[in-house]
Amino acid sequence: MPWVECVPNFSEGQRPDVVDAIRAAVASVEGAHVLDASSDPDHHRSVLTFIAPPDRVGEAAFRAVRAASRLIDLDQHQGQHPRIGAADVVPFIPLRGVTMAACVQIARELGDRVARELDLPVYLYEEAALRPERRNLAYVRRDHYETLKNTIETDPDRAPDFGPSRLGKAGAVAIGARGPLIAFNAFLDTANVQIAVEIARAIRESGGGLPHLKALGLLVGGQAQVSMNVVDYRRTSLFAIMQRLRAEASRHGVAVVGAELIGLIPQAALIDAALTFLQLPPETRNRLLEQRVGLATGDYAELRFE
Amino acid sequence: MPWVECVPNFSEGQRPDVVDAIRAAVASVEGAHVLDASSDPDHHRSVLTFIAPPDRVGEAAFRAVRAASRLIDLDQHQGQHPRIGAADVVPFIPLRGVTMAACVQIARELGDRVARELDLPVYLYEEAALRPERRNLAYVRRDHYETLKNTIETDPDRAPDFGPSRLGKAGAVAIGARGPLIAFNAFLDTANVQIAVEIARAIRESGGGLPHLKALGLLVGGQAQVSMNVVDYRRTSLFAIMQRLRAEASRHGVAVVGAELIGLIPQAALIDAALTFLQLPPETRNRLLEQRVGLATGDYAELRFE
Repeated sequence: MPWVECVPNFSEGQRPDVVDAIRAAVASVEGAHVLDASSDPDHHRSVLTFIAPPDRVGEAAFRAVRAASRLIDLDQHQGQHPRIGAADVVPFIPLRGVTMAACVQIARELGDRVARELDLPVYLYEEAALRPERRNLAYVRRDHYETLKNTIETDPDRAPDFGPSRLGKAGAVAIGARGPLIAFNAFLDTANVQIAVEIARAIRESGGGLPHLKALGLLVGGQAQVSMNVVDYRRTSLFAIMQRLRAEASRHGVAVVGAELIGLIPQAALIDAALTFLQLPPETRNRLLEQRVGLATGDYAELRFE
Repeated sequence: MPWVECVPNFSEGQRPDVVDAIRAAVASVEGAHVLDASSDPDHHRSVLTFIAPPDRVGEAAFRAVRAASRLIDLDQHQGQHPRIGAADVVPFIPLRGVTMAACVQIARELGDRVARELDLPVYLYEEAALRPERRNLAYVRRDHYETLKNTIETDPDRAPDFGPSRLGKAGAVAIGARGPLIAFNAFLDTANVQIAVEIARAIRESGGGLPHLKALGLLVGGQAQVSMNVVDYRRTSLFAIMQRLRAEASRHGVAVVGAELIGLIPQAALIDAALTFLQLPPETRNRLLEQRVGLATGDYAELRFE
């Protein structure tokens, strides 16, 4: 059975009823399965993870965007994380039996529909981008909502790919297609956000650090945080990222005191980190008991040893 | 569907046709699935991993023991690893929907049958042991085949639980029931086996080291190896073991240069090692994408991102 994953991010992390309503909007589409909902009250942001067959995933995402644009008012929203809209980003990921090209098509069709039916400005990003510079989501979100309100009307570079060149209270939507991404935040034992900003700059690709890594320094709940997106964990591993992060932290006289994952993670990313740490060869990833049971019997369930 | 895992170890690691014949004997039982076969020519030893429903797993194990006892002659066998028989150890593990008590029953019934039909001496070990000192497999195997040939006839402590008090060319069989075990070997950058012996002694439970860890120092292919059995990875993690191993190696002026896994590994053991290394909270183990897809849809297969 082919599956597309969709991981929309919403600018609401404090009202569970709003997140529940968006989740219910997705679940109302037959064939759509909500796998996870993560809300962060500090970032004031939520991430929904769902899967659906290729011919249903666009409908489920549309209903989520519609619910978010009705329930979230960006004029009432505060948060340090970059954002341009209520339904801030809506990426489609080819999970199994689906091509990236099909996900690009789904993203563009959704963009067109969101503009027509909800009258929202839409930017297409990453693989779905129509303008090359918009492949980079950070570029699309370089103006946050408050700034974009003005620039979208005055700057031709900010004109959306679909929809009106003006922002209402629901803001704009970035819709894209991409590979699997890991959202991973590390906490430092300091309240000095400048240190997190400098570490982020040193480790991320755009600063000459690790390829396929994005990073921001933020202050979250009074603690400095390096907020990271691992764009391709197969090329830059979590093991390498953590080693670099610790080295940079140590250079600043601080330590990583904990980390958190936002949303879900492909298990291979954790397995690979473990194998590197344990000095086991990469082929060991094919020696998982659960995997062998699932493949041999088609009977998948977590094993629960007594 | 309830599953019992069985992980028999055989004293043959050099003739693939013998291992294949044992594997075929298991697969001839309806409902049995061979998940893995690992042969180590240096240890001259193979490990088979299979699963079967509780009412079929004993039959599959019996056929494996019968094939091994006909095809392997211990008088022709050399290897550093402790062993007492052709089918050296046969443990049953409750994988899902089965109790440990049921596995104890399966082990004892198999012991009785192996003695009656194959005329082999049988020792019951771990949870299936009838004598408390035989819970410990190392104690059961303290005399290797060559020594046991004599002691089994003369020492009442060495009398088997079932079968004759004499050894033929197929030796004896240790049959048991236990929890999931990880067989994990680390290689050192030295040919001095004494260092491996001392490190093994320092890190294992019986030497006052880590609980639930067994370890031996061996010379394998000219390289010192610490050969380990992780008896309960939920209480002593692979992360903790690797940290201790590196510290002990460093104390001896050597380094761990690689590792290998024998047989299969419960994926939770690797996930937990990764989470500890990445400083992610233990609950993160419930945020695996594949796990959520499997649980939501019942559709298990590895995800293959483009």
